[in-house]
Amino acid sequence: MAPFVFVIASADNDKLKTIRKLHQKRWREKLGLFAAEGEDLVAAAERASWEPEFVLWSGRDVEPALLDMVSTLGSGSRVIGVYRQRWSAPAGDLAVWLHAVEDPGNVGTIVRSAHALADGPAILGPGCADPYSPKAVRASMGSIFARPPARAGLEALPGRPLALSPRGARTLREADLAPPLVLCLGAERAGLPAALESDAVRIPVRNESLNVAMAATVALYEAAHRMAGHA
Amino acid sequence: MAPFVFVIASADNDKLKTIRKLHQKRWREKLGLFAAEGEDLVAAAERASWEPEFVLWSGRDVEPALLDMVSTLGSGSRVIGVYRQRWSAPAGDLAVWLHAVEDPGNVGTIVRSAHALADGPAILGPGCADPYSPKAVRASMGSIFARPPARAGLEALPGRPLALSPRGARTLREADLAPPLVLCLGAERAGLPAALESDAVRIPVRNESLNVAMAATVALYEAAHRMAGHA
Repeated sequence: MAPFVFVIASADNDKLKTIRKLHQKRWREKLGLFAAEGEDLVAAAERASWEPEFVLWSGRDVEPALLDMVSTLGSGSRVIGVYRQRWSAPAGDLAVWLHAVEDPGNVGTIVRSAHALADGPAILGPGCADPYSPKAVRASMGSIFARPPARAGLEALPGRPLALSPRGARTLREADLAPPLVLCLGAERAGLPAALESDAVRIPVRNESLNVAMAATVALYEAAHRMAGHA
Repeated sequence: MAPFVFVIASADNDKLKTIRKLHQKRWREKLGLFAAEGEDLVAAAERASWEPEFVLWSGRDVEPALLDMVSTLGSGSRVIGVYRQRWSAPAGDLAVWLHAVEDPGNVGTIVRSAHALADGPAILGPGCADPYSPKAVRASMGSIFARPPARAGLEALPGRPLALSPRGARTLREADLAPPLVLCLGAERAGLPAALESDAVRIPVRNESLNVAMAATVALYEAAHRMAGHA
């Protein structure tokens, strides 16, 4: 006897409606949930031992066309998992703090860089994009599960703040990078609060400037390397 | 007497049709053109003295709703400029070569990093995303105009190749970074041709790995700094 299998065949299904709601920040906040699309992200959640609220596989749990309708990817998705949001405590010998970084791709990329280079969470200050938006989750490439982001104002940082800014008087190489250190970066236009900006260091470039995700990654690399005992 | 002003009021207009075609790689190749959306990019083109084929300002040259219809941004565009593609010669004391990097956002980001940190063009090997796609142009943040990309196979690089790979036996800091140097990076899955991969260096991380754009940026930073005379 074939096992009984329930395949969702109506767009009116509650799970599909939840996924669609989670496209919107308002609903993500209200429900405390978020969606991760694609096999790589669902596998990353599993590796990090996150229990999903539910997972829908195309063709197994739901008609493929219906899953595609709630996908945020142009190509549709083979699988979508829904998870409860988590927030880390701001911590670590090396961290990065973001101020008003509004682009979700940049926020997600920095979640990944902080995981890779500092083994810690990115710390989000006021005005940042939602790290649980579809675009940010995708840009984190699974690091959102391994090191969920933290939230904190300037007054609650886990280490000495060091501002990075294209207008910094000194370069990163001249800066004291002893732990515990929090690298502080702002959006390209708005920059950082004035108290930080006044003593900022810059990343030496030959031309123009780096975007905030590039700058954060370079600074994390330099600081992690310095802390590992190389001058 | 008021000056005669012609405002495009039909979606059937040739300029609008051209912009729409340029969403597709096939048409970009056929026409040798590309579109840049938004005031920042059009200003960057002007700064770099690129003569546009044409520029359409919303409300001045074209009905806003019609320009929005050919925009690739969810929010619509205030301005779209169309330009002839240019290709740089592979050159420079420090360059980056990409192999099969298929994500246009990563390609555009690396165009920007190469401009900022190496003051040169990114060099695209076989299988890379089109740097003139809307997403790549946007990610380059104007560097596509300042330092148009180059194209070259492995045999035509302007310097000594150094492969970057998460599987490298040595670290970047242990590598000889004397100019002329070409940093070689591949897509996260496919990697680099075997001849390069066998002598690759890695970027030291605490966890996981960096995406290709992050890795390129860190390696460019390290090499540029080393070349500037710091150990």
